Parts: sequence; structure tokens; C-alpha cells
Amino acid sequence: MDEITVTAPATVSNVVCGFDCLGFALERPRDRFTLRRIPEKVVRIINKDGFGLPVDPERNIAGVTLVAMLEDSGVDHGFEFESDKRIKPGSGIGSSAASACGAAVAANELLGRRYSQDQLIEFALAGEMLASSARHADNVAPCILGGFTLVRSTDPLDIVLLDHPDLFAAVLHPQIEVRTSEARDLLPKTISLSSAVPAWANLGAFVAGLSAGDYGLIGRSMVDEIVEPARRFLIPLFDELKRASLDSGAIGGGISGSGPSVFMLSRDRPTAERVAKEMRNLYAAGGIEFNTYISAISSEGVRIEK
Amino acid sequence: MDEITVTAPATVSNVVCGFDCLGFALERPRDRFTLRRIPEKVVRIINKDGFGLPVDPERNIAGVTLVAMLEDSGVDHGFEFESDKRIKPGSGIGSSAASACGAAVAANELLGRRYSQDQLIEFALAGEMLASSARHADNVAPCILGGFTLVRSTDPLDIVLLDHPDLFAAVLHPQIEVRTSEARDLLPKTISLSSAVPAWANLGAFVAGLSAGDYGLIGRSMVDEIVEPARRFLIPLFDELKRASLDSGAIGGGISGSGPSVFMLSRDRPTAERVAKEMRNLYAAGGIEFNTYISAISSEGVRIEK
Repeated sequence: MDEITVTAPATVSNVVCGFDCLGFALERPRDRFTLRRIPEKVVRIINKDGFGLPVDPERNIAGVTLVAMLEDSGVDHGFEFESDKRIKPGSGIGSSAASACGAAVAANELLGRRYSQDQLIEFALAGEMLASSARHADNVAPCILGGFTLVRSTDPLDIVLLDHPDLFAAVLHPQIEVRTSEARDLLPKTISLSSAVPAWANLGAFVAGLSAGDYGLIGRSMVDEIVEPARRFLIPLFDELKRASLDSGAIGGGISGSGPSVFMLSRDRPTAERVAKEMRNLYAAGGIEFNTYISAISSEGVRIEK
Repeated sequence: MDEITVTAPATVSNVVCGFDCLGFALERPRDRFTLRRIPEKVVRIINKDGFGLPVDPERNIAGVTLVAMLEDSGVDHGFEFESDKRIKPGSGIGSSAASACGAAVAANELLGRRYSQDQLIEFALAGEMLASSARHADNVAPCILGGFTLVRSTDPLDIVLLDHPDLFAAVLHPQIEVRTSEARDLLPKTISLSSAVPAWANLGAFVAGLSAGDYGLIGRSMVDEIVEPARRFLIPLFDELKRASLDSGAIGGGISGSGPSVFMLSRDRPTAERVAKEMRNLYAAGGIEFNTYISAISSEGVRIEK
């Protein structure tokens, strides 16, 4: 096989009560990448999308991932990576993870599937580091594996695929850029132990709620008194979005990743559609461009298209 | 009904990765209390055990609980509380919670069962405050409800009863006293956000492991880099106990509550017995008196005996 096309899903990380460890995959949007084997031992990036990402492989997330895989595998060829991204960089729904994971899975196919999923996550993490300068797999894990994931540990890598009931996300992506590294600078370096206790209790309860299919518990557990207060001002009308969504039947939600996207979970698609409509109504009055997405939690991660 | 006898189970709280929120009930030891209606509008404490707990109801955990319930219910009588405790105060396996919960459940019976379980937990919490000067329900919840509980919130009270597979605890109680309030003073007031993330990821993974019956994941998640390092020196041979228990087949374990008891979980009773034997062997050489208990997680909380 000399060429392969894959699509990689957008992902929602943090999920309010699981900062740096929880994440889930969306059905859409998905990035589209084609990877070709080339005789030169280099990585060549071709951007077919209009995002103007660097073509220098050392400054490109997919490029870093591919260079690492070529080096590790010791093969005698290179890769041409054709990028047709649909997930806008800096959107907070895992654009960089999609690049890294799409590249990793595509390369693994062209390298004869020599790597395990955990190894692919490791390679993608190396790529992700370029975007966030932190080693955290909360977007990468669901992007590769699909579903709802909890990163128990990155060193050693220990990913838990969580049971969950039907859940539908309404995502609003305001077209303002929030850099992951800058959103990270807003975070407190230390927190009081007394504020950490409710944070871990909420995450434990959230996982219990997911596994029992208890929507009420899932909703009550989606509380974050640590990260959300530091970042919510980045997102215009954040409180109003949340209020209107909950009033429309959403279970809970908040900032997706480091923002600016906002996600709200609902128990069925009609509710998610109603929530998305409320979000659109709120933003329609302002001068900010935005997209909305409605999606189930996708059991599919990176998908091989042809 | 003018008199009732109840037994209240020992409980293990914190459970390594759930500081101030996780707890489970043991089958044994159990405290035994008899409560009598008396015409005088007072609370009278009679100690039949040898622990010398205060008989002034305002300085006695069961007393505080009973006074609060008498006041709230507005009845025209008092209570005589006869205490025959088997759970040594300051043992770290929920002695004060057993007093508070036993008193609350017994009083509710004599008051015509007017209170819900959540209300009984609230009354018992008021009693517990006397011991720990902190409002946390991680012993009280499993003592009332039985089973494995997660306190998502104490205000408002929100307790999650966790699904779990068969689990057997081996508990070693060294006869040294650790006051809950003093063990609390050892804790860091603030922690780094970067150390909080693995803590909540471990709790989330632990709950997922419990619900999936994944013993490997349960064990890997029983990690605590925050509280255990601050308290482990209180317990002679703590590291050796842990090492020997894991080598004998225990899944994981650590300090019970604020210590000095140490608990280790195993997937079956024979393994728990082997673990308890290893713990006894280690302590037999030293000069410290100790007890060991082997117990399944009890689905029963406070039990009405007659």
C-alpha cells in the first residue's frame, strides 16, 4: 500500500469535571488526510485546507508525529502528508489531536500496522506537545480510540474506555482564537486541598453516573470550580449559553478543551438540536461568526477511508 | 416502642484515591447501642464499654446527634443511650461515625421513622463534626447506607452508592492513637494543579474499575501522592505492610481514614486471609499491640437488632 486516506474526529476534552483526563469523540466535524509513501526520506506537508499551518515538518503537528514514526521504524522512505482539515485550529475541539492522530494511524497503515493503539497514542502525544507544550492525552485518546475515555496516567500510558449511555453534544464554536498554551497560562498553579476534594468527588460521581446511565447524576457532577472560573471570560456570553442550554433540557456542559468552543450534553438528539438552536439564537445577535455541531458520542476514532 | 438495640459497622474512608469522599462498610467490627425513651427531656449516656468516652451529651458524638434530633423533632421526652462500642475510638475505621450513625438510626426508630436516610446522614454529620471538626460524610454515608459510597457533595448532600465487584478487606489496627483532627493538621493546605490532575484521574478510573469489576484497574488506581505521603510516617512499617500485602495478592490499599489502621483489598476471602496473616507476621516482631479484621464489603449499614 502506497497511499491511504483517513478521517479523524473532533474531540471534546476536559468535559467540565475531568480537566486534563476526560474526553470524547464527536461524529463530526472530521479532518481528512491522505498519506503517501515517497522515496525521499523526508516528511513533506501539503495543505489543501486554508488554515495556513506550517509546512516545515518540525513545526507541524502531523509532521512531528510522522518524523518520530519514521525514525522509530527505521524504514527507508518518507511520507507526503496532504492535509484537508475541517476542524479549525484553536477551536477547542481537538484540531491538533486530529492532525496528530490522523497522521499516526495513516502512517501505521503504510508501515504494516506495526504499532499498537497505545503506541500510536504515544506518537500522537509527541505531536500534540507542539500545540499545548503539555503531555496530556485527553484529546488524543478519544481521537484514536473513539468513545468516552479517561486518561488515568500518561506515564505509563493507561487509558480507560468508559461505559456511557446515549449522549448527544451540541457544540458552539465561536470564531475567535484561543491558544491552548495561553489558556493554560490562565490556570492557577496551586489550588487549595479543600477545593480539590469536590473536584475529584465530582469526577468520581460523573464516571459512576456514566456507567449507571444516571443522567441526573451526570448533570449534577458536571461542575468545575477550578478551571472554568479562570477561563470562562474568554468566551463571550458563556454564562448565558449555559443557562439557556440547561433551560432547554441539556444535562450539563461547559468549555470544550481550552475553548473557545462550548459543548452541552443532552440525552437525545432532539434535545441537542433544541440546545444548539438556543445557542445560535444567543450568538446571532452578536457580531461573532460561529459554527454549531450536533453529534452523538462517536464510538469511532480515526477511520480509514480508502 | 420504648427501647431499641442497633449495631453500627466499622467503615473505611478515603480508600487511598478518594480522600474525604470514598468509603465502604465492613461486616465487622460493629458497635452495639441500646437507646431508650425516658420521660426527662435530656440525653443520658451510659458507657458499658471501657473506652471512657465523655458522658456529657454535648461532648459525646452520639449525644450531639441525639440532642439535635430531639430538638428538631420537638418531642416531649429524652433518650438514654447505652454504648457498648467494639470499634476503638481513634482507630481510623469510623468509630465516631458508628456512634453518630447508630444513635441517629436508633433515635429515628423511636421517633416513628420520621427522617429519611439523607436526613439521618445530616444528623450524624453534626455529631461527627465533634470528632473531626470537618463536615465530611465519607464514613457516615457507608455506615448508614452500607456498601461502597462516594460523597459527591455534602452541601447539598449527594451520596452515590457505587457498584462494585466482590472485594475483601484485610484491616490491621495498630493500637496507637491518631486523632483525626491532628492527622488533618498534617495535610497540605494547597496542592499543585499538576498533582491534583492524577489524583482525580485515579478516582475516576477507580470508580470505572469498580463498576466494570476490573480488579487490575482498581489496583492501579489506588494511588495517592497527596495525603498518603503526609501521613504514612504515623504508621509503623507502613511501606513494609503495603509491600508484603501486594506480594501476597492484595489488589491495593493504604491508610484507612486518617489512620492508624491500614486496609488492603483483595478479590477473595482466602487472599484477604493470607494478606492479614502477612500483616500480623510483620507486626508480631514489634512491640505494638494490634488487631486484624477480615471482612467483605458489607451491604448493610446500621442494623436494627431488636
